[in-house]
Amino acid sequence: MRKIFDEDLQEVQARLVELAKGARIIMNKGSGAFLNSDVSLADEALALADSNERKALDLDELVIRILAVQSPVARDLRILVSALRISASLERMGALASHIAAIARYRFPGSAIPDSLRTTFTEMAKIDIELAEKSISLLESPDLDLAREIQARDEAVDLLHRKVFDVVLAPTWSENAMYTVDVTLASRYFERFADHVVDISSKVGFLQTGEW
Amino acid sequence: MRKIFDEDLQEVQARLVELAKGARIIMNKGSGAFLNSDVSLADEALALADSNERKALDLDELVIRILAVQSPVARDLRILVSALRISASLERMGALASHIAAIARYRFPGSAIPDSLRTTFTEMAKIDIELAEKSISLLESPDLDLAREIQARDEAVDLLHRKVFDVVLAPTWSENAMYTVDVTLASRYFERFADHVVDISSKVGFLQTGEW
Repeated sequence: MRKIFDEDLQEVQARLVELAKGARIIMNKGSGAFLNSDVSLADEALALADSNERKALDLDELVIRILAVQSPVARDLRILVSALRISASLERMGALASHIAAIARYRFPGSAIPDSLRTTFTEMAKIDIELAEKSISLLESPDLDLAREIQARDEAVDLLHRKVFDVVLAPTWSENAMYTVDVTLASRYFERFADHVVDISSKVGFLQTGEW
Repeated sequence: MRKIFDEDLQEVQARLVELAKGARIIMNKGSGAFLNSDVSLADEALALADSNERKALDLDELVIRILAVQSPVARDLRILVSALRISASLERMGALASHIAAIARYRFPGSAIPDSLRTTFTEMAKIDIELAEKSISLLESPDLDLAREIQARDEAVDLLHRKVFDVVLAPTWSENAMYTVDVTLASRYFERFADHVVDISSKVGFLQTGEW
């Protein structure tokens, strides 16, 4: 029985890694669409977010079946409950990245980013993609140092998020309301994406330490 | 054993109802702070969101203990997994309502709402509070008609959310970027709050029909 259960847990882990790879690709394409006004990348991001959502639901069903058949307790039970939460975060990350793609789509063939914020958003996108990559590594192999690195990188995203508002609220900001709306929402989506990676890292950290 | 388990489920239900009442009060205070630039209401909303978050974590711990002790299967197991998801939505609703309070706090003693959007936000807040009330009723007693009403009211919030952007992106919009940022974020928070009530209603609907 234990052997089968270990195989079940490996399957859950493999599917979480797959979802994290999905979130990373959607952020790649979504931020690429946003930074380069690339409408075909935007469409790809939107389609992949739908498929990631379906995969997250399938994973939840698998976890529920394992809970029913194996009646796990203690650490095994917590791993499975954590898997449900991690899957919810990964699904949400795909959705947030697809919202960034949707902004690019609305503004096509124009750009949603004024020149004064291009560097800031390029950096935010870079760190979000890096964070998604770290979430893949973390799910492949729990590592407390990596969990701490993720928290530090999230702080860098928070700083960039505040910088967007500093630029937008400065007297020198002369862009129209459409730019203001677009960059406000996009910045919020990038920031929430990073938050979810932190949530995942705190759950994976728990799996390692046994502390909830 | 079954009797004890039924008592466990009743306890979970009672705590979900309490969390939903918490989310309703936080939205009451948060939207009141936002509409009337009331900083003491804002502080109350922020404190209550913290306490709601702790209560959600406590509920999750209770659900995990029940899963460990009772090893439920079939419908009982799905009720408990749904409870974890509903608790996450209710916690998030409190956080979103507290973000609305935080906007009021930043702008105090000024207002975050220009006159041209006051009616729209008053209506959005009213429907969000109503939706929170419906989530309480639904958790007290599952009702498919109520779940459908919730979906219809969420559409009303989506329309108001779009109306905010129609106003902000119209040539007549002459407010500064601070107003644009504030109303963009607040509108997004109101809209997400309503989305979570829909998520809850779809899970409670499942508890009634047995369809996932």
